[in-house]
Amino acid sequence: MEKNRLEAFSDGVIAIIITIMVLELKVPHGSDFAALQPLLPVFLSYVLSFVYVGIYWNNHHHMLQTVKHVTGGILWANLHLLFWLSLFPFVTGWMGENHFAAMPLALYGFVLLMAAIAYLVLQNAIIASQGENSLLAKAVGRDCKSKLSSLLYLTAIVAAFFSPILSGLIYASVALMWLIPDSRIERVIGN
Amino acid sequence: MEKNRLEAFSDGVIAIIITIMVLELKVPHGSDFAALQPLLPVFLSYVLSFVYVGIYWNNHHHMLQTVKHVTGGILWANLHLLFWLSLFPFVTGWMGENHFAAMPLALYGFVLLMAAIAYLVLQNAIIASQGENSLLAKAVGRDCKSKLSSLLYLTAIVAAFFSPILSGLIYASVALMWLIPDSRIERVIGN
Amino acid sequence: MEKNRLEAFSDGVIAIIITIMVLELKVPHGSDFAALQPLLPVFLSYVLSFVYVGIYWNNHHHMLQTVKHVTGGILWANLHLLFWLSLFPFVTGWMGENHFAAMPLALYGFVLLMAAIAYLVLQNAIIASQGENSLLAKAVGRDCKSKLSSLLYLTAIVAAFFSPILSGLIYASVALMWLIPDSRIERVIGN
Amino acid sequence: MEKNRLEAFSDGVIAIIITIMVLELKVPHGSDFAALQPLLPVFLSYVLSFVYVGIYWNNHHHMLQTVKHVTGGILWANLHLLFWLSLFPFVTGWMGENHFAAMPLALYGFVLLMAAIAYLVLQNAIIASQGENSLLAKAVGRDCKSKLSSLLYLTAIVAAFFSPILSGLIYASVALMWLIPDSRIERVIGN
Repeated sequence: MEKNRLEAFSDGVIAIIITIMVLELKVPHGSDFAALQPLLPVFLSYVLSFVYVGIYWNNHHHMLQTVKHVTGGILWANLHLLFWLSLFPFVTGWMGENHFAAMPLALYGFVLLMAAIAYLVLQNAIIASQGENSLLAKAVGRDCKSKLSSLLYLTAIVAAFFSPILSGLIYASVALMWLIPDSRIERVIGN
Repeated sequence: MEKNRLEAFSDGVIAIIITIMVLELKVPHGSDFAALQPLLPVFLSYVLSFVYVGIYWNNHHHMLQTVKHVTGGILWANLHLLFWLSLFPFVTGWMGENHFAAMPLALYGFVLLMAAIAYLVLQNAIIASQGENSLLAKAVGRDCKSKLSSLLYLTAIVAAFFSPILSGLIYASVALMWLIPDSRIERVIGN
Repeated sequence: MEKNRLEAFSDGVIAIIITIMVLELKVPHGSDFAALQPLLPVFLSYVLSFVYVGIYWNNHHHMLQTVKHVTGGILWANLHLLFWLSLFPFVTGWMGENHFAAMPLALYGFVLLMAAIAYLVLQNAIIASQGENSLLAKAVGRDCKSKLSSLLYLTAIVAAFFSPILSGLIYASVALMWLIPDSRIERVIGN
Repeated sequence: MEKNRLEAFSDGVIAIIITIMVLELKVPHGSDFAALQPLLPVFLSYVLSFVYVGIYWNNHHHMLQTVKHVTGGILWANLHLLFWLSLFPFVTGWMGENHFAAMPLALYGFVLLMAAIAYLVLQNAIIASQGENSLLAKAVGRDCKSKLSSLLYLTAIVAAFFSPILSGLIYASVALMWLIPDSRIERVIGN
């Protein structure tokens, strides 16, 4: 029961984050196709962030399936993750409005990195609460995908100042890499 | 249980979409009746989109009743549908503020069309997951209503450039056609 | 189960409506007390609408407790109610920003009236679905409170053009009258 | 069942409050690091309020675990608490945009104080509904932490006019003091 409310609250916050990002896509004054063109980078960064938030919701959903008892540590680790996710609309808007300039690109990567770290902190809080035979620990294993993502975010942050295009491509690649839902947890639960 | 969370998240996103559309109805400065008049087209497009989002929620609700197990494919097909729905506030605002000009009308139809396609993709993902005796497949049948809607959206997109009024009327007609809740699923579940 | 989702969606929409109304309370530029003063009417109309939306949530909550099976008619009557409630942020903002001028006061009353009618339509749809021994029909009885409210809204709409203060007082009185939760339904369920 | 809907609605409102606060963090026009600097106080006040709203959600969650039957009094005490929480985005934005000036700091404290009082009113309504052997009454005990918080808010409101830094530090300290989840209720339920 306790868990249901944690999920419901997280779902609410994530649903709002994914939806208010679209408010950065401000209605233009003109009514022709040219009026839409300046919005293209804003739209692209919206799509990227929509996919990222979708991935977080998806994986959060799978991870919480392994949780039986919600501890105080899990509650706060979860809020910490939601905090970094709540900055997505801001960094997405900044990146889009500045046509993927260096600083906004780097800040976007920084928030992605912090969200990834917050996700790991939540994962560890859940594993710690589950003790030795943690279902989640088994499912996650060595967690190479997360480590690789963090490394790629760091690379993209540095790349932002040399080649914005490379930086953007790295963000898109990490998103693609995670689009495949985390079958590891489903596998372990299935056994 | 998994399904509940998918429904809760979708409900959250759809509830936010249907509500933030009203933010395009910006409070005017004057306090007389004349101050409200320029808002009329914005209000009309709000009503139209409210009905459309209501229809999607309604049918989504019925469709998910047939789902037992949520697969990764269903999760992403659902997010894909939510993505196109999330663009409703933008296209609604653009169409309203430009008094149903050609381009905004056409873009509105394009987003309607993409949402309809996303709905079909989700429907197919659910049918595929249910195997041979899919309850949803039986309920949907040949799905003439969806095919007709897509055809009408295409017609309205083209019509936008010749007769905006015709285009708007087509959008309104499709909405009316769907206002009747999808009794096909209720019928099959009832058996 | 079907009912749960109807409640969840309505809760989501009402929660968003009650919260985005506060966005009309725009952060002023100055940092002294004088900067807050022009916000007073906006704040007062926010308080009034917060109470009204709270009353609707409260009564909606009680009314749905009597529902067993959700029909298509109930779904659409519910969306119709949510539509009128979704206009609360707009009319609240307009009334507040124009310091309770005649037209905004009257429009506020009009939306209150339409929401009250939509609530009655939903109530009748539920009663119709419950057949002869409707629990809700018994609970509601002759429904004098609703009839009186509608009459008072009408009076306040007319009064707006003669005495804005009287009009505002009527709205506040109706809200106070409803603040007492609808014990009729609890009483009947308790039996 | 009744309780579930109270929780769901509260979760919805709190989720929206915690998320729309980020909208005060307006996307700046420049794309360099200097463009971010004026946002620092807005960001700091966002972090502070995020933690406060998180604390309220956390404690609300624990407190409602002890509730079995929702009375009309509890419903309205809960809405009253949500009302004061709904003012957080406004006072947070005002405090941030004015770089922690005296009046905005004091108003922030006033809203914190009113929310704390509203929380106590809700707590008392729940205790009253539980009768003599109230689980919550046992868990709360003499409730020194709440009394101390209210005293500190009052101190900070006065301090705002003499030493804004001291005032801000007090707000941060109270938040830290509450970051430790309320183990009192868990302890009593566990017995």
